[in-house]
Amino acid sequence: MRILSGIQPSGSLHLGNYFGMMQRAISWQEKGEAIYFIADYHALTSLQDPSSLRRNVLEVARAFLACGLDPDRATLFRQSDVPWVVELAWLLSCCTPVGLLERCHSYKDKIARGLPASHALFSYPVLMAADILLYQAEMVPVGKDQKQHLEITRDIAAKFNQRFGPVFRIPEPDIQPDVAVVPGIDGQKMSKSYGNTVEIFADPEEITTRVMAIKTDSTPVEAPKPVEGSILASLYKLVSSPEEYQEWVASMRRGGIGYATYKKELAAKILGYFAPIRERYRQLGEKPSYVEEVLAQGAERARKLARPTLEMARRAAGLD
Amino acid sequence: MRILSGIQPSGSLHLGNYFGMMQRAISWQEKGEAIYFIADYHALTSLQDPSSLRRNVLEVARAFLACGLDPDRATLFRQSDVPWVVELAWLLSCCTPVGLLERCHSYKDKIARGLPASHALFSYPVLMAADILLYQAEMVPVGKDQKQHLEITRDIAAKFNQRFGPVFRIPEPDIQPDVAVVPGIDGQKMSKSYGNTVEIFADPEEITTRVMAIKTDSTPVEAPKPVEGSILASLYKLVSSPEEYQEWVASMRRGGIGYATYKKELAAKILGYFAPIRERYRQLGEKPSYVEEVLAQGAERARKLARPTLEMARRAAGLD
Repeated sequence: MRILSGIQPSGSLHLGNYFGMMQRAISWQEKGEAIYFIADYHALTSLQDPSSLRRNVLEVARAFLACGLDPDRATLFRQSDVPWVVELAWLLSCCTPVGLLERCHSYKDKIARGLPASHALFSYPVLMAADILLYQAEMVPVGKDQKQHLEITRDIAAKFNQRFGPVFRIPEPDIQPDVAVVPGIDGQKMSKSYGNTVEIFADPEEITTRVMAIKTDSTPVEAPKPVEGSILASLYKLVSSPEEYQEWVASMRRGGIGYATYKKELAAKILGYFAPIRERYRQLGEKPSYVEEVLAQGAERARKLARPTLEMARRAAGLD
Repeated sequence: MRILSGIQPSGSLHLGNYFGMMQRAISWQEKGEAIYFIADYHALTSLQDPSSLRRNVLEVARAFLACGLDPDRATLFRQSDVPWVVELAWLLSCCTPVGLLERCHSYKDKIARGLPASHALFSYPVLMAADILLYQAEMVPVGKDQKQHLEITRDIAAKFNQRFGPVFRIPEPDIQPDVAVVPGIDGQKMSKSYGNTVEIFADPEEITTRVMAIKTDSTPVEAPKPVEGSILASLYKLVSSPEEYQEWVASMRRGGIGYATYKKELAAKILGYFAPIRERYRQLGEKPSYVEEVLAQGAERARKLARPTLEMARRAAGLD
């Protein structure tokens, strides 16, 4: 089964990305022929700073490899290394009613959040449809927020097939159950835009400093600590075994230990949990050309997968 | 000076196309480095019939060559042979406010005329901007109806340059004076969609039949004929010398000759006027591979012109 997944090149990996998305995405390589593209064309709708974009693309590729993506099994490539996807998006555009895009929640949400209402942002679902259809993906794991986009993809594919003949496989959505939201150090959802992240590949000192800055309440040292709503406990749960977590909770409920101690323990646990990943990340940093090679090989493989579909679509539309 | 012009692959050439657009477009090859692309990506917004599209593209190329386009001086190519234009359109999209497109008259007009409101139709001005900017055209001759699109192109180019650095030359519009409207056989503007055309490359018999069907009034043979508003006189003017036209008008004003005679004379004149063009057209029909070769060579030249700009734009945006 061919599984496709897009990766936002959003910069340094933090606990929220890892437990919210990356860990799960990497698991797809066990389930079938996994294809991961780093969505740099899409990123341009919000990130218009060329050196950051370049750095982020390489950074996210390095992070995925460090976290266990196996380039021999899965295909990892830069979206813009296969520009055919934009050409396909034009062909699909001809079968896409404007009304379909006007009804997109995500466009309205992004505008409401202050992103400039660019034509690219508006067109995003058509390029996303092209991403999926160009690779004839069978399964596209998406969060609930992307459900509408996948329905649009299926709509567009059906319209194109009906008008021009059977070119595209209609992809199946695989709506992912929500993962628990990872809290940031201030208790809001961990997100780069809130400045509340703990980065996985930061220096140990910085990780410790960030963890020490986690918001706690004013429960005295000797008193039992509330577990419900505790940022410390939520994060500890992610990086420990169930037994360790039970012990930690029991200790909090007993009282007698101050938050600073828990924070130090959490910081150490995070560093321990990510030690092998951090080590691979360090090694990858020593051979930056390796990451480039993986992307180049991925692009070559992606082009091989894409070419027959693009040619079929062009021929069907009369562009040959 | 580099002059760019897009050609709609709209099928068989008629008198309205020739005197309204083609004659003038071909004259640009005398004025500078003329680049003509057959707009097949654009055509897909309204023509979703692959075999008609294929045929129309070859037909319009053959007609342009027959009418005097010189492939050694000018570059003639299929738009879709340089798919980079669609990639560039995406980069431009990121700098194009949706509002700019929503204000386009031509989109609203097309919807009002019953074209489906597809995303491609809505996006047309961005692809048009890419057409122009990819080739760093200095001058773009357009009719008044395209003036707004050219302003949008200049806007988008300025926004991109401001955000990412100086990549694009800002093209100058060259608003063409209106040519006299060529009337069709029913007196409305000659247009394929009205079914009132006289095709230039039709059989002589068919041309004569069409001309004989031109609408006239019921003035008796012996009476003087009205010249003002006469379809016959308007068409005769296009295919005759000023002296011949004066004679024709004088004869109409004298009276004594029936419309059928004038019609036969007009048909003969049209055939005479287009004889060399029709002969070249016939010759081109004997070597269809020649038209394909011209387009292939044109595409190669166009790619050479386009490549540096595309690379500059990608680099500027951080896609390298």
